[in-house]
Amino acid sequence: MQYYSYEMFREDMKELVDKIDFNPDGIVAISRGGLTMAHFLGIALDLRRVYTINASSFFNKVQQEIQISNIPELGGNQRILIVDEIVDSGTSMEKVYSILSAVNSSIDFKTACIFHKPTAQFKPDFILREASDWVEFFWEVDVVKSLREEQK
Amino acid sequence: MQYYSYEMFREDMKELVDKIDFNPDGIVAISRGGLTMAHFLGIALDLRRVYTINASSFFNKVQQEIQISNIPELGGNQRILIVDEIVDSGTSMEKVYSILSAVNSSIDFKTACIFHKPTAQFKPDFILREASDWVEFFWEVDVVKSLREEQK
Repeated sequence: MQYYSYEMFREDMKELVDKIDFNPDGIVAISRGGLTMAHFLGIALDLRRVYTINASSFFNKVQQEIQISNIPELGGNQRILIVDEIVDSGTSMEKVYSILSAVNSSIDFKTACIFHKPTAQFKPDFILREASDWVEFFWEVDVVKSLREEQK
Repeated sequence: MQYYSYEMFREDMKELVDKIDFNPDGIVAISRGGLTMAHFLGIALDLRRVYTINASSFFNKVQQEIQISNIPELGGNQRILIVDEIVDSGTSMEKVYSILSAVNSSIDFKTACIFHKPTAQFKPDFILREASDWVEFFWEVDVVKSLREEQK
């Protein structure tokens, strides 16, 4: 288990801003995982157009399925960066990328993530870290763990 | 000028989770300001349905106008919490609240913010702090200021 702190994230976002040689008009966050990342990047890159898309995974009888909803209206943009916190199997980001590209054929999409698993079937354009272990993100545990401890 | 740190935010989110006696099915973040807040609350309240709506303000010849776009599809929800980081004039949250209520007459909406200005024309149901001064949020300055210093 690997804890990913706010301090690590803050340094990573600086590095990502330096890496992105793409000049996007807007950002699409995959909700929920990409929300904090999109918020910070939107401000650091001075982009007011921060959109989200919902991807929820569920298991049917045979395999994992990804359901995509709330596809944002991206008209007026030329370059869009899609972000998520972790690309694990890669199915979420691949599906979001495919759907957004199909709906917006004139937009150039690039993708970014904080953690990437080497076994993923999708490789984003911008990757910050390799995930070898289960990652506990600060937005997942800092509030929840502390609330649990208070209730004891 | 008041700096709002990650540590303050983390404690505030714990307080907000305790305050919310509402049992929402989902959260709508006003983008960009409410994104990090919605991410943390979505996880702390165990809600996968975290949506966003875009509100951008611009000045026409006479007054400030708020343009709302990417209205999320909220079908299937009974109770929704709308969140933003600060309610300043109150026009953004009021407009988002009105539009979402008009489109979804069967949904019960409640609203939450971190900072509220006493002069605002809209008062959310859940408020954490009163804003007497300009607030610098950690998501606005922690990455940007540090990038600027490195470039010097």
